[in-house]
Amino acid sequence: MKVKGNHFETIWINEENSGLVQIIDQRHLPFAFRIEDIKTAEDMFIAIRDMHLRGAPLIGAAGALGMYLAVLDHPGKSISEGYITEKANFIKSSRPTAVNLSWAVDRVAEDLKGLRPKEEAVELAKRMAMQIMDEERENCLKIGQYGVKLVEELSNRKNNDTVNILTHCNAGWLACIDYGTATAPIYRAHDQGIKVHVWVDETRPRNQGARLTAWELSQHGVPCTVIADNTGGHLMQKGLVDMVIVGSDRASPYGDIVNKIGTYLKALAARDNHIPFYAALPSSTIDWQLGEGALETPIEERDANELRMVEGMINGKVSEVEIIPRDMPAVNFGFDITPARLISGIITERGISLANKKSIFTLFPEKNLNPD
Amino acid sequence: MKVKGNHFETIWINEENSGLVQIIDQRHLPFAFRIEDIKTAEDMFIAIRDMHLRGAPLIGAAGALGMYLAVLDHPGKSISEGYITEKANFIKSSRPTAVNLSWAVDRVAEDLKGLRPKEEAVELAKRMAMQIMDEERENCLKIGQYGVKLVEELSNRKNNDTVNILTHCNAGWLACIDYGTATAPIYRAHDQGIKVHVWVDETRPRNQGARLTAWELSQHGVPCTVIADNTGGHLMQKGLVDMVIVGSDRASPYGDIVNKIGTYLKALAARDNHIPFYAALPSSTIDWQLGEGALETPIEERDANELRMVEGMINGKVSEVEIIPRDMPAVNFGFDITPARLISGIITERGISLANKKSIFTLFPEKNLNPD
Repeated sequence: MKVKGNHFETIWINEENSGLVQIIDQRHLPFAFRIEDIKTAEDMFIAIRDMHLRGAPLIGAAGALGMYLAVLDHPGKSISEGYITEKANFIKSSRPTAVNLSWAVDRVAEDLKGLRPKEEAVELAKRMAMQIMDEERENCLKIGQYGVKLVEELSNRKNNDTVNILTHCNAGWLACIDYGTATAPIYRAHDQGIKVHVWVDETRPRNQGARLTAWELSQHGVPCTVIADNTGGHLMQKGLVDMVIVGSDRASPYGDIVNKIGTYLKALAARDNHIPFYAALPSSTIDWQLGEGALETPIEERDANELRMVEGMINGKVSEVEIIPRDMPAVNFGFDITPARLISGIITERGISLANKKSIFTLFPEKNLNPD
Repeated sequence: MKVKGNHFETIWINEENSGLVQIIDQRHLPFAFRIEDIKTAEDMFIAIRDMHLRGAPLIGAAGALGMYLAVLDHPGKSISEGYITEKANFIKSSRPTAVNLSWAVDRVAEDLKGLRPKEEAVELAKRMAMQIMDEERENCLKIGQYGVKLVEELSNRKNNDTVNILTHCNAGWLACIDYGTATAPIYRAHDQGIKVHVWVDETRPRNQGARLTAWELSQHGVPCTVIADNTGGHLMQKGLVDMVIVGSDRASPYGDIVNKIGTYLKALAARDNHIPFYAALPSSTIDWQLGEGALETPIEERDANELRMVEGMINGKVSEVEIIPRDMPAVNFGFDITPARLISGIITERGISLANKKSIFTLFPEKNLNPD
């Protein structure tokens, strides 16, 4: 998507120097747009661990490109399986609970199995990393193509008046390679000339909405407004929201989703006000093994300091202030579950399904190991 | 309630110097506990306008005591009606939309009508201000006495295990003279030895929960935990909330309430999880003239900078950081409506009613001008 009028993705191999990977260092957004050079697997390890980049699809791509850099860095003429395993474990340890990271790194490692000439290994690693990026980009593109129809319909129903879409957290292109998941239908609609406006939940405690989603939408020219997380229900009561689109960190084939804490509250408000509520996700987010009601929130009680400390600009410098004293108990849960009964539909790379097993397996029949 | 082990109210006349009013300067909480001397009506004007104190009942009392100081300050031997009117208008202009302020100031002004010896006027003004404070204190005390029964019941049902209560914003003693509204049943339960724990919503964008409610509960020894506003739904899904109690800024005799933005979302989550949701309010909060469905959110789109700027401690100093850039659109609505259908009951100074007209008028029959 666009940044200051130019097209950017979140991660790429430098055009003139194929030994250099570059990323948008997201820690400084929205205050500064900085590109970071990633020259080695060690650089990538730090970028992933310290969250210079985040978002499941992006972390996967970063891991794959980290493997590519590891192979490039190898001093000898041929690459052993031991070296690959060692580097794969190293990169995966940067965020041990990130499923997408392991999956992407292992895909590259698998491809490189067996002793190989370095040159061949470099080509293979690069090709696999590019393929992973292509797949992620393609998934988001398709989600946009299918999802835009929902926006179009609302626009038609409103006689081309602005469609107001509420979103929570950042399921935008900054979390992916391009387009995003929840944002893909929005960018597509905007690019097609449909009038859209996005209500962006601040998304406490890490403020991904205020810091990332609002920034990326604005940079691409999509009108948006940041609101406190408390505000969505009121806006819906007042008729100021036409639809809700969120992403998902994990989903069940029964249509329940895990997403950033607070998503459930917006889904309740959407239902209470008869507003459609959609989750946009690539099918890789669905854990096909899950039985009915088996989706659980990840055990992720995060550091309460994320709630206590708030980062922002002061005197032209990014600094943190303490808003809750250290001796005051505080807890910080990362996710909640939005049950399928509150979800109008799931926007995937194969189309839009209802939030139930039958409809989801109709789109992904090969995943149904026990068809009725 | 207690602060550092000693009993405090939010505003008082100094015991040794009856010409000195003192308040807790709430701007510095929870980082510093400061008592401010209010020596003149002008001091009180500034304290109200610049929110050294806030909360409807407290602002009313402050206005009345401001009138007392104005009378004390009069240089002559007798006080004219013109002087009273001038001072009343001056104090009321400190927060022109605060209904309680006008009401309290006018009560004192009414009492002082006609030319009077200054000494008599001082006595009258003081007596009326004290009476207003007594009434507010008494209302909260009664709300606590009635409301504690709900907590007691839950405690019994849990075999004396901790009752977890969620609250939003600050409807605590810092907003009143003592006890608070939503907090009154909680303090009462705690003081009676019932085990309670409070989930305190941070309450963006002004963070009254994190800054005031958590502080006042902790100072009194009530266990509490600050959470992001996004968290309440998840806690309810997990069975970690036994009841919700909130205050109200305005209520209808049909049982709908206006309260701090985000209250509605918690009410939806409470209903979805079969958790009782109570509003605690003195009957002065009810606008008896309202017809069914006539309650509207006050037109209060507040300064978006309240959302953009966050105040906290940095290097031992209270400072503000900018978390949303100035050029990014943001809106800040102050209130939402929680409809009666989501409210289990209303805790008033005369008892607990259901959130419907019949039940409310049963407690306040004199307010029913058109009985069926």
